[in-house]
Amino acid sequence: MQRVTNCILLKDDHILLLKKPRRGWYAIPGGKMEQGESIKESVIREFREETDLQLIQPELIGTFTFNILDGANVLQEWMMFTFVCDQYSGRLIEHCREGELEWVPTKHVMNLPMAEGDRAIFKHILTSRKMLYGSFFYTEQYKLIDMRIDPTGY
Amino acid sequence: MQRVTNCILLKDDHILLLKKPRRGWYAIPGGKMEQGESIKESVIREFREETDLQLIQPELIGTFTFNILDGANVLQEWMMFTFVCDQYSGRLIEHCREGELEWVPTKHVMNLPMAEGDRAIFKHILTSRKMLYGSFFYTEQYKLIDMRIDPTGY
Repeated sequence: MQRVTNCILLKDDHILLLKKPRRGWYAIPGGKMEQGESIKESVIREFREETDLQLIQPELIGTFTFNILDGANVLQEWMMFTFVCDQYSGRLIEHCREGELEWVPTKHVMNLPMAEGDRAIFKHILTSRKMLYGSFFYTEQYKLIDMRIDPTGY
Repeated sequence: MQRVTNCILLKDDHILLLKKPRRGWYAIPGGKMEQGESIKESVIREFREETDLQLIQPELIGTFTFNILDGANVLQEWMMFTFVCDQYSGRLIEHCREGELEWVPTKHVMNLPMAEGDRAIFKHILTSRKMLYGSFFYTEQYKLIDMRIDPTGY
């Protein structure tokens, strides 16, 4: 089962996001866990590999189950662990092989093109530091079919 | 990949634990996640199935990676999500098929027979509400080979 860790890095009312070339969607920087890692070890390694920045004490803010469906068939299930962090060291990498890294003003984040489930995650993060739990159900084309999140209301 | 959710339920300086018949070791009640569940949905369902108790707002307190090794070979990797909770409804089940449910005085917990990694988890929970991240490395006979936990010091 694929497990992804990523981190919402905040600085001066901006969030560091990755604009992926395929759809032009924005994503939270991160990547796949490796064998034997804790989720925190993974997010620190992945963020450094992708951005050259060293996260300082990221904190888990959300744990999510993703289901990719073809009708009633579950094609894939994976998990995502999302951290939040407001301290780091290092200088941002100039070229990231995954896409373009961009400090986006926090107030613009909700209007960016992104996976619909990610929008719910941002809505939570931008207003709360409570842990968020969720399950998202997508088609193979990454169209959101359904989601359940707790706390609700996002 | 197997994913387990469990919950440390606290009441009047006691913790509800499950004494498993095989080794006589004590464990945190819980069980395996099902497809599509969030970790919180899973822990509520598993705890109810095992104890008849309905957890009220359990909170994630630890996320762990477990590696079962045979020498340098990784035989199995799985994850455990541990919640803590101090409110519930319902009446404790009389017979649990997994073992014996017991309200153990908190001050005795550290001295019970259990997996060594679980002892580190309890040491943390009994003194802190900060999120705990960890990786544990066990033999097939459940002898602890190594662990990394964050925060350290447990």
